[in-house]
Amino acid sequence: MEILKANVEKFNQLKQDCGTHSPSLQMMEYYFGPLWKKPIDACFIRNPLATDLFLSYMVEDIKDTNFFERLVCSYPSQNQQIAEIISNAIAYDFKKIFVGNGATEIIQAVIHKFCNKIVIMLPTFSPYYEFSQDVEYYYLKAENQFQLDVNHYLSFVKASGADSIAIINPNNPTGSFISLGTVEEIIENLQHLSCIILDESFIHFAYDNPHFDFLNHQYIAEKYSNVVLVKSMSKDFGIAGLRAGYALMNPKRVRFLLDSGYLWNSNCFSEYFFKLLAQDNFRESYERIRKKYIRMIIDFYQRVLLINNINVYETFSNFFLIELSKIKSIELTAELYFRYGIYIRACNDKLGLSGEYVRICVGREDENQYVIESLGDLLGHKS
Amino acid sequence: MEILKANVEKFNQLKQDCGTHSPSLQMMEYYFGPLWKKPIDACFIRNPLATDLFLSYMVEDIKDTNFFERLVCSYPSQNQQIAEIISNAIAYDFKKIFVGNGATEIIQAVIHKFCNKIVIMLPTFSPYYEFSQDVEYYYLKAENQFQLDVNHYLSFVKASGADSIAIINPNNPTGSFISLGTVEEIIENLQHLSCIILDESFIHFAYDNPHFDFLNHQYIAEKYSNVVLVKSMSKDFGIAGLRAGYALMNPKRVRFLLDSGYLWNSNCFSEYFFKLLAQDNFRESYERIRKKYIRMIIDFYQRVLLINNINVYETFSNFFLIELSKIKSIELTAELYFRYGIYIRACNDKLGLSGEYVRICVGREDENQYVIESLGDLLGHKS
Repeated sequence: MEILKANVEKFNQLKQDCGTHSPSLQMMEYYFGPLWKKPIDACFIRNPLATDLFLSYMVEDIKDTNFFERLVCSYPSQNQQIAEIISNAIAYDFKKIFVGNGATEIIQAVIHKFCNKIVIMLPTFSPYYEFSQDVEYYYLKAENQFQLDVNHYLSFVKASGADSIAIINPNNPTGSFISLGTVEEIIENLQHLSCIILDESFIHFAYDNPHFDFLNHQYIAEKYSNVVLVKSMSKDFGIAGLRAGYALMNPKRVRFLLDSGYLWNSNCFSEYFFKLLAQDNFRESYERIRKKYIRMIIDFYQRVLLINNINVYETFSNFFLIELSKIKSIELTAELYFRYGIYIRACNDKLGLSGEYVRICVGREDENQYVIESLGDLLGHKS
Repeated sequence: MEILKANVEKFNQLKQDCGTHSPSLQMMEYYFGPLWKKPIDACFIRNPLATDLFLSYMVEDIKDTNFFERLVCSYPSQNQQIAEIISNAIAYDFKKIFVGNGATEIIQAVIHKFCNKIVIMLPTFSPYYEFSQDVEYYYLKAENQFQLDVNHYLSFVKASGADSIAIINPNNPTGSFISLGTVEEIIENLQHLSCIILDESFIHFAYDNPHFDFLNHQYIAEKYSNVVLVKSMSKDFGIAGLRAGYALMNPKRVRFLLDSGYLWNSNCFSEYFFKLLAQDNFRESYERIRKKYIRMIIDFYQRVLLINNINVYETFSNFFLIELSKIKSIELTAELYFRYGIYIRACNDKLGLSGEYVRICVGREDENQYVIESLGDLLGHKS
């Protein structure tokens, strides 16, 4: 137990050194040594079933050594040529698609070029405020389940004097979701703004009916010229290493960004991913996996509800925000890691969260089973 | 022959549509259909032996499915963490290394952030003038073998009022090389400039002794705080698809660039490459391949000298600039492609070249043999 205590302190220090980004599992292993043969990474957000799908295609394709050689040695296509590939995948005019070296590059470019003062909801994904020079925070309240009070928000934005807002929907780390109707109501009421960033990086995990039909909000970017719809591929497709993301925006903005750089900003592996995405059979396989994974998320929720001494927030994403009542987030995270080999996200650094919170990402079936059992061991079960 | 004539015209049109970048072989195949089972790409610049080396390592490593999964699904490290990896490979302080999503990103960032008015030598790699707002051209002369007249150049730069210059050494498309002593003389005389870009993307093919020892000019970036030494990995390591490049510059400039973005601009495959580069055994294998390839370049030169009706410029890179006396560059390029399946670079679009020039990259042994034979067929042999 003394060792554990010392490790909690060391972990706390490492976490503080990492600022607003939690140490990755790799960093933990580097720092504390390889304690576990196969640790479970429930900190990192991604759909692992989709990673498997992508890998199965890639392993097959690179058996052709000529193909593999070209992937490695050729120059990738230019931004607008990759936009044409994406255009085939999502049925959207390529002149309105801007391709990023990951969504992070896009978020940064859009904030730097199109936003002066921006309203950011808290808690949220930290790059939104890290990239911004002039930010006004709008606090979502735990007692409202981090749900948005639309009228209050609209008044706040109007009074703030900001020219921009960012809506991350579903939100991270809360998992809360704003319905399409409400999103449109907000946008409709904020047409005086120059830029509305709508980040739908987690939208593939959200649903509004029991069939889990794909929620396609693209027409919003088409309809409102001040909207920039950002889409990361890292979480839903589980391919963060490739750096693939795009944004839908009015074509003048696409042109402006291209003129200020970003012409050759993709690599051949992200281009390869987008070419897969443009294939019907890949999208159909992915669609099955997406729905299967949503069922796994719901199943996880049912089981985590039975754990004692926690408050789980409902999610429309692939992770759960959990409030702790009897243990500090750093302690639970350390206990899970050092005693069980499970790495979760301690949220003690998250602006806009007061209290003890952790975020747990849904993994593969057997991983989820083990995570639930371990949480039960540590925190007890509801009677 | 009628078909060939029509194709020459179509090719000419396609080339004009591509502006300052020649159509890639892939684009040719897309446009004209798959005419050849295995066409030879002597347009694209890279060392194919190095691509093979990289692929042999990667094929071995990704047999470990956990490793492959991490490569695809994990976030790459941040800029300065990758700089630390490079630091181990090249023995240079990581705080003075800026990592780019390909050298092109670096060239653009450096020109936009540190250069107001820049002197560019012509002919050269087109992004240098495409990214620049205010350019003064310095023309290298064919009658001087495109060699630099240092005193004339220094007077020109001083009279221009420019605050920046770019020296691509060895130069593209000429292959000409400025010795280290001369480079340092130039820099020494231009200490009033705010930025001297020294692009050594082809330096691995240059040599100044019969052992072909690696030319390490890094100390120049260390010694002169206005120097930015740019290094692409695409050509020498044959991995353009990965997007890997770095630049050595004073640490304040590195910090400035990181503060304006570029924090997460690499992908896991380029990070993987740099990790290989930091391995002694990889660098040793590469070193053998680099020297072998230089011998192949010299061998190519000896044989191309025997072809009639051309003037070959001496090179310290892995391609040859060739002046044609009896045929237009577009025609020779089309004939080689449509009749022999060899794709070379017609240089009729290159600023600063007047006359008919093509550029031919050195490939694998059997490819070089076939290229020489085909050129002999078309142009004849010296008697």
